[in-house]
Amino acid sequence: MPIKTVGILSPGDMGHSVGQVLGSNGLRVITCLKGRSKRTKSLADRARIANVLTYQALVNEADTILSILVPARAVQAARAVAEAISETKAQLVYADCNAIAPQTACQIGDIITEAGGRFVDASIIGSPPRGERVTHFYASGPHVRTFEELSKFGLHVIVLGEQNGQAKAIKMCYAALTKGLAALCTELLVAAETLGVSQPLKKQFQMSQSALYERMERVLPRMPMKSRRWIGEMKEIAKTFEHIGLTPKILAGAADIYRFVGKTDLAERTPEDSDPLPTLTDMFSMLASHLLEFQKNSPKPKHSL
Amino acid sequence: MPIKTVGILSPGDMGHSVGQVLGSNGLRVITCLKGRSKRTKSLADRARIANVLTYQALVNEADTILSILVPARAVQAARAVAEAISETKAQLVYADCNAIAPQTACQIGDIITEAGGRFVDASIIGSPPRGERVTHFYASGPHVRTFEELSKFGLHVIVLGEQNGQAKAIKMCYAALTKGLAALCTELLVAAETLGVSQPLKKQFQMSQSALYERMERVLPRMPMKSRRWIGEMKEIAKTFEHIGLTPKILAGAADIYRFVGKTDLAERTPEDSDPLPTLTDMFSMLASHLLEFQKNSPKPKHSL
Repeated sequence: MPIKTVGILSPGDMGHSVGQVLGSNGLRVITCLKGRSKRTKSLADRARIANVLTYQALVNEADTILSILVPARAVQAARAVAEAISETKAQLVYADCNAIAPQTACQIGDIITEAGGRFVDASIIGSPPRGERVTHFYASGPHVRTFEELSKFGLHVIVLGEQNGQAKAIKMCYAALTKGLAALCTELLVAAETLGVSQPLKKQFQMSQSALYERMERVLPRMPMKSRRWIGEMKEIAKTFEHIGLTPKILAGAADIYRFVGKTDLAERTPEDSDPLPTLTDMFSMLASHLLEFQKNSPKPKHSL
Repeated sequence: MPIKTVGILSPGDMGHSVGQVLGSNGLRVITCLKGRSKRTKSLADRARIANVLTYQALVNEADTILSILVPARAVQAARAVAEAISETKAQLVYADCNAIAPQTACQIGDIITEAGGRFVDASIIGSPPRGERVTHFYASGPHVRTFEELSKFGLHVIVLGEQNGQAKAIKMCYAALTKGLAALCTELLVAAETLGVSQPLKKQFQMSQSALYERMERVLPRMPMKSRRWIGEMKEIAKTFEHIGLTPKILAGAADIYRFVGKTDLAERTPEDSDPLPTLTDMFSMLASHLLEFQKNSPKPKHSL
């Protein structure tokens, strides 16, 4: 049966862009905005994604649902959809596209399958598809060929295999690099600022690690607005690594860093904000001040050498 | 008083190269090889570093001692030298050049100062000085100007200030990037291999993270031979970050990774070995096998998806 209607949960920054691509390539794209933020509603509007009032309506009308959420909400969303499938006996494919551990994906697979849905393990690598950008959709699992149909409607789909968990595995390893590195850089630049060596460190980096330093200048100022979302993702990667016998600590520490950044006012920005981003120097002087301020409320002052 | 004789503790890979530079620029360079490995002895010979039989002789003959060791041995070496200073009333500058936390350096500073020596906080960024390579020696503390004299004898010295701990601070932040990143990359590549996605991950990296992937190919095959030494350094960085109120977990996790790599036979290699380095693919297939093997002895097998 060909794909005609795709449900998107939920049309946030990534979700609404994916919906827009599918819509402009001829699919009907719907969502259920029950309980979602004003920002998500306006993004859905902008991407011309139609709203249905209930999850029952969503599963009845959609033949494929893409779950694109903050990692922490992935299981809860699958449960809500599974309940609606059970109630309506709707026939559909549920593709979890979230940045979660392979084990969490398998848990979601069970929830969907037990309700009577067909589960696809998927993941997204790259920024939201807009303009010339290529966003890669990895997919795996027994029902992967159905998901592959979406490549006819503007998505770049790469099939990894018939096993659930593979699409999550590649995402976890990839995000460990990009977001793990951003956390590591954030920590060492806050430390350098706090310890009074940020200027000589910058010089040394420019001499002997110039590519990495340029990456920091390019990537880090956009990080705080995503920091809160990334806490859950870092925990999922930590879980993935621990499950195979590797240390969870590096990524658990990355979650700590994003939790710290998420508590600062730098995290209030949204991708739609148009005022200029701070420079790396300004950003780290702000983060170091926040650290000092948070430390003031801690029992022992820890900020001197 | 001008520098004439420099004592090096100990002439390992970095120490013997530093000694060779100072020796070829006109200084007398000595060491005390008591209890050191055969390899260290042969490196001292190669760099024409003279051996004295006791620490008492070392502190009597040297006007400056450079401590260049594995981080875990830094305090112990300072105690041995402090004892010899107390016994001999020798006048000298003791520069700790090790990759240790600012707090550990201040502890060593106290040990040396209480014995009657003058302490300099120093650190080394870069590979051992050989050929055209520039190795940066950062220095700080009240006696930093004495250390700066070494720039007349072939070392590239950068003075950071009059405060002990600054030279360590820049080293800790710099090494957090280089060695923290290598640990992160090692973990995610072992995970990708174990989870069966290393080939598509490599393709994705080559498409969208090519600079970082090329860095992995260049840097990681040389890492195992240094992994055991780096465990202590990662712990010192974790301590540095924790002291100012930042998470120690990222770097504690990096220590875990180097502990894992250090347990494999890949770590047996020395920089003098001439057989070709493994490719990234071979190296990670070996590490993943080791992980599986180590897991077999753990109570729950954890290596499936």
